[in-house]
Amino acid sequence: MLNRNVVETLKKIVGDEYVLTDQGDLLTYSYDGTPDQPQVLPEVVVLPGSKEEIIEIVKLAKAEDLHIYTRGSGTNLSGGTIPLRQGIVLVTTRMNKIIEVDPENLTASVQPGVIIAQLNDAVSAYGLIYPPDPGTVKTATMGGSVSESSGGLRGLKYGVTKDYVIGVEMVLANGEVVTFGGKSVKNVAGYDLTKLVCGAEGTLGIITEILVKLIAKPQYAKTMTATFDTLKDAGYAISGIIADQVIPATMELLDQTTLQVVEEYIHIGLPTDAKVMLLIQTDGNVEAEVELEAEKVVAQCKKNGCRDIALAKDAKEAEDLMTARRAALPALARVKPTTVLEDATVPRSRIPDMLVAIEDIAEKYNLQIGTFGHAGDGNLHPTILTDARDEAEMDRVRKAVDDIFAVALKMGGTLSGEHGIGIAKARFMEDQFGAAGMEVIRRVKEAFDPNYMFNPDHFFFKGE
Amino acid sequence: MLNRNVVETLKKIVGDEYVLTDQGDLLTYSYDGTPDQPQVLPEVVVLPGSKEEIIEIVKLAKAEDLHIYTRGSGTNLSGGTIPLRQGIVLVTTRMNKIIEVDPENLTASVQPGVIIAQLNDAVSAYGLIYPPDPGTVKTATMGGSVSESSGGLRGLKYGVTKDYVIGVEMVLANGEVVTFGGKSVKNVAGYDLTKLVCGAEGTLGIITEILVKLIAKPQYAKTMTATFDTLKDAGYAISGIIADQVIPATMELLDQTTLQVVEEYIHIGLPTDAKVMLLIQTDGNVEAEVELEAEKVVAQCKKNGCRDIALAKDAKEAEDLMTARRAALPALARVKPTTVLEDATVPRSRIPDMLVAIEDIAEKYNLQIGTFGHAGDGNLHPTILTDARDEAEMDRVRKAVDDIFAVALKMGGTLSGEHGIGIAKARFMEDQFGAAGMEVIRRVKEAFDPNYMFNPDHFFFKGE
Repeated sequence: MLNRNVVETLKKIVGDEYVLTDQGDLLTYSYDGTPDQPQVLPEVVVLPGSKEEIIEIVKLAKAEDLHIYTRGSGTNLSGGTIPLRQGIVLVTTRMNKIIEVDPENLTASVQPGVIIAQLNDAVSAYGLIYPPDPGTVKTATMGGSVSESSGGLRGLKYGVTKDYVIGVEMVLANGEVVTFGGKSVKNVAGYDLTKLVCGAEGTLGIITEILVKLIAKPQYAKTMTATFDTLKDAGYAISGIIADQVIPATMELLDQTTLQVVEEYIHIGLPTDAKVMLLIQTDGNVEAEVELEAEKVVAQCKKNGCRDIALAKDAKEAEDLMTARRAALPALARVKPTTVLEDATVPRSRIPDMLVAIEDIAEKYNLQIGTFGHAGDGNLHPTILTDARDEAEMDRVRKAVDDIFAVALKMGGTLSGEHGIGIAKARFMEDQFGAAGMEVIRRVKEAFDPNYMFNPDHFFFKGE
Repeated sequence: MLNRNVVETLKKIVGDEYVLTDQGDLLTYSYDGTPDQPQVLPEVVVLPGSKEEIIEIVKLAKAEDLHIYTRGSGTNLSGGTIPLRQGIVLVTTRMNKIIEVDPENLTASVQPGVIIAQLNDAVSAYGLIYPPDPGTVKTATMGGSVSESSGGLRGLKYGVTKDYVIGVEMVLANGEVVTFGGKSVKNVAGYDLTKLVCGAEGTLGIITEILVKLIAKPQYAKTMTATFDTLKDAGYAISGIIADQVIPATMELLDQTTLQVVEEYIHIGLPTDAKVMLLIQTDGNVEAEVELEAEKVVAQCKKNGCRDIALAKDAKEAEDLMTARRAALPALARVKPTTVLEDATVPRSRIPDMLVAIEDIAEKYNLQIGTFGHAGDGNLHPTILTDARDEAEMDRVRKAVDDIFAVALKMGGTLSGEHGIGIAKARFMEDQFGAAGMEVIRRVKEAFDPNYMFNPDHFFFKGE
């Protein structure tokens, strides 16, 4: 049990109202967006308002030998913010200031609790965008998004969070504050610790400030949908587009299961009789370029047996289609009580094989799997619709997940394209990195956090 | 002194002809492209031909407690390959195979001894390029280039080496082999150790294979030069172009000193009476886009007091101008016996201030400083023309260098945009990172290389 003085000290640090110990609050902050995970109620939840308060909290945790689980909105899908040991949950949502937008240098700096969409609202006045756009753009915090290095619908052309973070300030496990990176777009002084912190899932320290690059908002876009009778054809169309050296801003895939549940959910007339639909958007600052790329996309789809290809007739229809794609996860989640969403990612040329492999796995274990995702990146989200209360089916679900990862790694892929490892996928890590690689990961963790104060089980948790 | 058995064992591992111990050879491999550095003759130079041989060499070095200094062509400018302690110099130039070009996935994998230009030759058959292009593209190895995270003339739009390396295989200090990253373009499994190794200056292990992303070769380009009467005006033109959201492929600056020595060297009719010249290239796959960007560049130059702006009339003239820029360093190096080239980098909006500050420093210490560089990135190369034998002047040179870095850091810049720290700039590291940051750098080093086998003084050397 937590020392009573700890709660009192925390109240002195952040103020009484920002220290939560009610059972209801503790339960709320023991969950995140990930289903079917073990969890432990934290002993106390604290919402600091400043870097100085975070330093004090870390020093207290060090003195009392307590774990700290840092979180923003908890939208992650890998158990990235679930406490597995008793300790403190530290919530960054009060630290929500946009510190600076610098249009001359095309940068912005924010506190970790800023919502991604708020940053985009702030920079849009300058004709700029912050490109990373995970499905949770309206709820996820920048701190969580940087810690998970979120991807999103624009990742194919514009890259992921890691590609835009050029500086971080963080509080280390010893209570010291360090700053890595800065406004210089080129910077090779010492190790690239900014990129190391980005995607480190909160295991290295607590981020207190984030500096990101911005880009000019593309002026033109063409949005189209293409339907196919087989997953393989769609896969070949995707590979063909990339091999033809076109990089669309967006190239998303929705399979029939996903199309049907999304259409039931939002009613915009999706082609529910198609086996698979691709949603593709080319964009840029010169209309001719955007059109040229769209023409190449159409040609590759036709060459690879597409059934039908349709151009969005206006911006509204284009936005509806993007909304349909963003609705894939919530729509699938309505069908069954439990939604197990995976994130296996393969080299682009293996997309057709991976799509077929997922179908085979669904059949083998008699499971309903809807697949959607950022197909152009090889980043698929096979989503198993199930019920956590059905133990027999959940056993098959776990086996299917094992198979999906084994196949992805065999194809030269990775355990996670954008959702991270957290506790949910830690048991597969050694398959990807080997014993020598895991030893390096452990030593890097200990270089920053020798006593495993922050998210101690991330990357290493093998299950209960 | 080296144990006699070490040389014999090395000969058994790599073959007699690939172990060098003659004084001449030892001297050759105790230098690199960096002037005015201390150095120690290595005791033995070894040129392995395979990963397996490297593993054996590392195990031997571990057993005998020897340092290993890994190098390719030694073109770096930060003392990155200069031995400061006795031990083994390991040369990767025999490991020069292009292992695979994969046009479907837009990737290539190479051994560390491949010359950058050889990789570009190999991928050009597919209409692809590997964008990083340091001035040494025809002599530098990929291993060295990845270890230093080289920049180059295309860095402004296309990024630097780090942005293209998506996987590395390396031999660790314990002789184990690890692989980080892979062909999946999205990958957030565990820490991003690929990006950590890139730019680590060989301090974490010996790279044995490199996987890089490729891009389609841009089809159109417009190349132009703009001359200005003051450095400040040129600086404002650069800032104006960026703030107008145009990112040219190339935006290079040459000051009058540089223009004059380059013209003397290659005679192509450069405007030697101009105080400063900008060399700008916009590129892309749609002519209209490239032209639109070129028009914006012209408008910004005119708005900021440019004296004259001229468009290259054909590809040959454009290439001549790029050659002129690439000749800046060798041309400056002809003027005086010693060329001290710095790499201080500032946020783009501070470029005008930095240019003026360098002029002031030249005047203060009565030195001849030619400034050129990747101005669009804020990455300037103030180059001091001097003579290492003139001790009084060298004292002023060192003070000027101190001032240049102090000013750059004060402007929110960094010690190095692309040349790295090595031993040459290590004494400034704590100014940028603080004591807490340096402690993190030391611990990361030790996580990989606890006994400081590889380049033990990099980042930490404070001078003799």
